Amino acid sequence: MIYITRKASFNAAHKLARPDWDEDKNLEVFGKCSNPNWHGHNYSLYVTVKGEVSPETGFLVDLKWLKHLTNELVVDKIDHKNINLDVDFMKGKLASTENLAIAIWDQLFAAIAKSGAILHCIKIYETENNYVEFFG
Amino acid sequence: MIYITRKASFNAAHKLARPDWDEDKNLEVFGKCSNPNWHGHNYSLYVTVKGEVSPETGFLVDLKWLKHLTNELVVDKIDHKNINLDVDFMKGKLASTENLAIAIWDQLFAAIAKSGAILHCIKIYETENNYVEFFG
Amino acid sequence: MIYITRKASFNAAHKLARPDWDEDKNLEVFGKCSNPNWHGHNYSLYVTVKGEVSPETGFLVDLKWLKHLTNELVVDKIDHKNINLDVDFMKGKLASTENLAIAIWDQLFAAIAKSGAILHCIKIYETENNYVEFFG
Amino acid sequence: MIYITRKASFNAAHKLARPDWDEDKNLEVFGKCSNPNWHGHNYSLYVTVKGEVSPETGFLVDLKWLKHLTNELVVDKIDHKNINLDVDFMKGKLASTENLAIAIWDQLFAAIAKSGAILHCIKIYETENNYVEFFG
Amino acid sequence: MIYITRKASFNAAHKLARPDWDEDKNLEVFGKCSNPNWHGHNYSLYVTVKGEVSPETGFLVDLKWLKHLTNELVVDKIDHKNINLDVDFMKGKLASTENLAIAIWDQLFAAIAKSGAILHCIKIYETENNYVEFFG
Amino acid sequence: MIYITRKASFNAAHKLARPDWDEDKNLEVFGKCSNPNWHGHNYSLYVTVKGEVSPETGFLVDLKWLKHLTNELVVDKIDHKNINLDVDFMKGKLASTENLAIAIWDQLFAAIAKSGAILHCIKIYETENNYVEFFG
Repeated sequence: MIYITRKASFNAAHKLARPDWDEDKNLEVFGKCSNPNWHGHNYSLYVTVKGEVSPETGFLVDLKWLKHLTNELVVDKIDHKNINLDVDFMKGKLASTENLAIAIWDQLFAAIAKSGAILHCIKIYETENNYVEFFG
Repeated sequence: MIYITRKASFNAAHKLARPDWDEDKNLEVFGKCSNPNWHGHNYSLYVTVKGEVSPETGFLVDLKWLKHLTNELVVDKIDHKNINLDVDFMKGKLASTENLAIAIWDQLFAAIAKSGAILHCIKIYETENNYVEFFG
Repeated sequence: MIYITRKASFNAAHKLARPDWDEDKNLEVFGKCSNPNWHGHNYSLYVTVKGEVSPETGFLVDLKWLKHLTNELVVDKIDHKNINLDVDFMKGKLASTENLAIAIWDQLFAAIAKSGAILHCIKIYETENNYVEFFG
Repeated sequence: MIYITRKASFNAAHKLARPDWDEDKNLEVFGKCSNPNWHGHNYSLYVTVKGEVSPETGFLVDLKWLKHLTNELVVDKIDHKNINLDVDFMKGKLASTENLAIAIWDQLFAAIAKSGAILHCIKIYETENNYVEFFG
Repeated sequence: MIYITRKASFNAAHKLARPDWDEDKNLEVFGKCSNPNWHGHNYSLYVTVKGEVSPETGFLVDLKWLKHLTNELVVDKIDHKNINLDVDFMKGKLASTENLAIAIWDQLFAAIAKSGAILHCIKIYETENNYVEFFG
Repeated sequence: MIYITRKASFNAAHKLARPDWDEDKNLEVFGKCSNPNWHGHNYSLYVTVKGEVSPETGFLVDLKWLKHLTNELVVDKIDHKNINLDVDFMKGKLASTENLAIAIWDQLFAAIAKSGAILHCIKIYETENNYVEFFG
């Protein structure tokens, strides 16, 4: 069993705010992250898959394939977008990094499984000082 | 003459779009950076000042002072904000990194000059792959 | 189950030396790390907690709370200090990164447990070339 | 049980190509990585060992020892070399990062076990955007 | 006058060796960098241009254009290649980072000048521990 | 004219405190940096030299030579040491990063000049958030 990880990046706007709460309540719970006019981040996304090395290629998976899959199912949908407003797989969810990691797992798990590899971890840096990991 | 630099960070939303152009024209010129619903970045800001070392303290400037000044005049106004909508010193300007660097220079130059040091450079990373420098 | 990590930093002096050994013996075992006049590091501390995402907030824990807790129980006691002489939770211990990781775990475990989340890992970089992880 | 990691670096040439395939087939499978005249990387290698902290030294292992062992058994054999042509422990293997991680594990496992510590993970960055981990 | 920098990356093989010297002489002068079977690096390239900000766009230059130009004239010719054997603009030159910086300057200067901006600096990291800058 | 830079690192203890001031006065001026029991840093040192590229070697200077010179004249004297107490070239000086940069310039300037290259800049990071540059 070997683990291989591919990093991707996307730049997006978001806010942490429940639509069923007013601004004061959102400010109380989410602080400056609730700014009604949005803020944003350079997100770094690490997709880790695991499985057996192919004796034919020396690869677990072709990283170009993993890159294109991640771009198609995640990056193209979220890069230079508003996570709360523009991203289909985040509709109706609070735009926290925790929820983002789980939603990206759900975007990728089945598509990766078709290759014979298994999705192991979604890791997202929101800033260089904090990151979330989800293992399913 | 010695040069000392302090790094600060802020996370903000923006878009590149002229209000006097329609969406198609903005998309043609600014590409995905013109997304009407915004996107955002983790900006890194490097403030470089120059001058003589004080024989009394061994300092050019007290970095705590430079940090507090940068926070007061720049970071507190832009962190977790929308650069186009929320930031007084960017009002009426296109929210490019070039214009941001010039505007931050204007925010800091006179206040730093009062300390006896001279502002030398404002450097802003928008992503890890591109940055702007302004020397006045 | 989701994992979230917050990075903190502190700058401290230390030496690796047993008070019951003489300088030659300490030099033999600990090399230049035993310098009697101390040396120091910029330590990076990663605190990882795990648990369930709150459906109300989309959070595992409020990162501002985790930051303040880490500052109160660890960073304020060790930053710009001498680990061997000034830090209550390291009294009587060899100031190795291994012992530091275990001591910081003990500082944080119970306080984090009160939040409903569980401390998962303490990771400390002493330099960019070496780090220690402790999982309890 | 504690985990300690030491980073090493090496700069090497390689190509991904099976000698029993022609250039066209290698190009089809391995893309630009199959360039017959080689390409190369700055590899970063992270060696993680686990075990008990010695009450006498506060160490799991002496990092100078781990550094010298890694240099002797790995870095000196691969740094500024061609992985396909010059490296004894990669002879007859496809020079993928996956195979490299497994081969470095095999180089180090027994030698580390003699110290009382246990090799836990070999992690190799080929570029800043992808890395492989092997846990045995 | 404002300065804007775009980072690019390429992975390449090379050796430092004069064809008119024998292996011993090359080893004496260039050390392990003269390995006849090549070694390689992940190079980071920073292209800095300078000029006036356009009042119409807030841009000095469109970074997408600068990226495409750098890819066309430099990265596509050198990425996953052998600098000594495969790269037209390095033919007949010693493959040092110094010569590479000068050659990349010559590749880009005139093409950038057509945009109205001026090439200011070519900076190349060969490893994270050394880099070369050329200002023309 | 070309510029080449070599990075070195050293880990050292220091404090900012004038011996002719009492603890209260030092605390007032230097804050937590005046801690009587010292603190410390992982310093990063960038030595930049400039000059002409040799047509014989493609080098401005041999980086191995620059590394050994920097080690001999700077790193070996300061790494794992106390800057205030152990370092001959800092004796009698306040251990600020500004004074350290100037003192390292004085250590290296004449020795580098003998090679035909010219020392251009000493840049020191005290933490990842602040650095000093001295150009003579």
